Amino acid sequence: MNTNYKDIKVIGFDADDTLWVNETYFRDAEKEFAKLLSQFETENKIDQELFKMEMKNLPIYGYGVKGFVLSMVEMAIELSNNTVPPQTISNILEIGKKMINKEVELIEGVEKVLQHLSKKYRLIVATKGDLLDQERKLEKSGLLDYFHHIEILSDKKESNYSKLLNHLDIKPSEFLMIGNSLKSDVLPLINIKANAIHIPFHTTWQHERVNVNEKEARFLTLKSILELPNLLN
Amino acid sequence: MNTNYKDIKVIGFDADDTLWVNETYFRDAEKEFAKLLSQFETENKIDQELFKMEMKNLPIYGYGVKGFVLSMVEMAIELSNNTVPPQTISNILEIGKKMINKEVELIEGVEKVLQHLSKKYRLIVATKGDLLDQERKLEKSGLLDYFHHIEILSDKKESNYSKLLNHLDIKPSEFLMIGNSLKSDVLPLINIKANAIHIPFHTTWQHERVNVNEKEARFLTLKSILELPNLLN
Repeated sequence: MNTNYKDIKVIGFDADDTLWVNETYFRDAEKEFAKLLSQFETENKIDQELFKMEMKNLPIYGYGVKGFVLSMVEMAIELSNNTVPPQTISNILEIGKKMINKEVELIEGVEKVLQHLSKKYRLIVATKGDLLDQERKLEKSGLLDYFHHIEILSDKKESNYSKLLNHLDIKPSEFLMIGNSLKSDVLPLINIKANAIHIPFHTTWQHERVNVNEKEARFLTLKSILELPNLLN
Repeated sequence: MNTNYKDIKVIGFDADDTLWVNETYFRDAEKEFAKLLSQFETENKIDQELFKMEMKNLPIYGYGVKGFVLSMVEMAIELSNNTVPPQTISNILEIGKKMINKEVELIEGVEKVLQHLSKKYRLIVATKGDLLDQERKLEKSGLLDYFHHIEILSDKKESNYSKLLNHLDIKPSEFLMIGNSLKSDVLPLINIKANAIHIPFHTTWQHERVNVNEKEARFLTLKSILELPNLLN
């Protein structure tokens, strides 16, 4: 396991569920959506079908709230066999707007840690969300000044991270990624010989779940972002 | 007028309507949308109302097809006084998916010019569209290899360009932006003392139109991208 971070020049932070709460709001939105359609199906069935619809649309819409809302609208029409009232569609659009305009709730310790790390490292945000949405959250969060810039990746695959390192003009060994998703923030980095630290969030979207053989893990898992400064001194 | 490009290191290309056709597809989509709602209003009125709705939603959704589709859905519900059939909403979602999956139609001369310029300059794409959408278009276009990377700006204002130059680690005088929109690709650059060249596309979205006093113009306007290589030798 690589816990030697002496070459690190740039630290990339995932945003949603690493810097601030996000997944919780999607889960809340799904509940609201299920309630709106409760005359047509059970909450459980609606949840499952919505997830399938999101997966079907992911290659077209990508990640973020807007694609999520479009999938909810499509699901509502399909699930109701074309009988959903327009008012319900309006309510779905409102769920989306509320999500986008939501206040930003920082994860505990984030600001303190960034303040500390920004003195020694170049910090960036590396996220696959929607740029406008993430910029807005960063602004609301009060964390803007700690970051050099935001990198939006259309997907967090190895090839996207390789492009990012090329773009940052650094070697894999000089980059450390920190995030809550094994699939998106950790494994692709390890595979391209960069560094990664996993800080799980209490909720993980189904799509982001993977199985890892803990013995083979070549990365650290932390309980809280507050453990970072000691590691990166 | 600055036509001395000897300091230029990086050239930023706008994507939609500079490298490939785009606005035409939005106009076609608006026509299709108006036809879907023709029982409720005239095409002209629908066009006007849709534009207002897009402007109202722009701070929330930003640019790109997904926000456009969400605005069409909202407009359909509003315009029909909550009586629009779910099938029509389905048709609107289809318009959006068709737009996203559309083939890429290059603007004449683009590939030849990029091939030439990429030998001497670092070329990037600087666009305010949706990242996934723009990456997909770039891949389909066959132009990927000419560009160092894509920069997505949430808005093309002076502050966003200043951030971009900071991020690229270059001086304003070393950057040249090329695009079809005066408002987005030219004027903000001139204002921060960077360089810009305007290559109009035959259609310009209302929101992108500005009036410029031609005598005060501090940038070149070209008829075709094919005129670039001679200027940048």
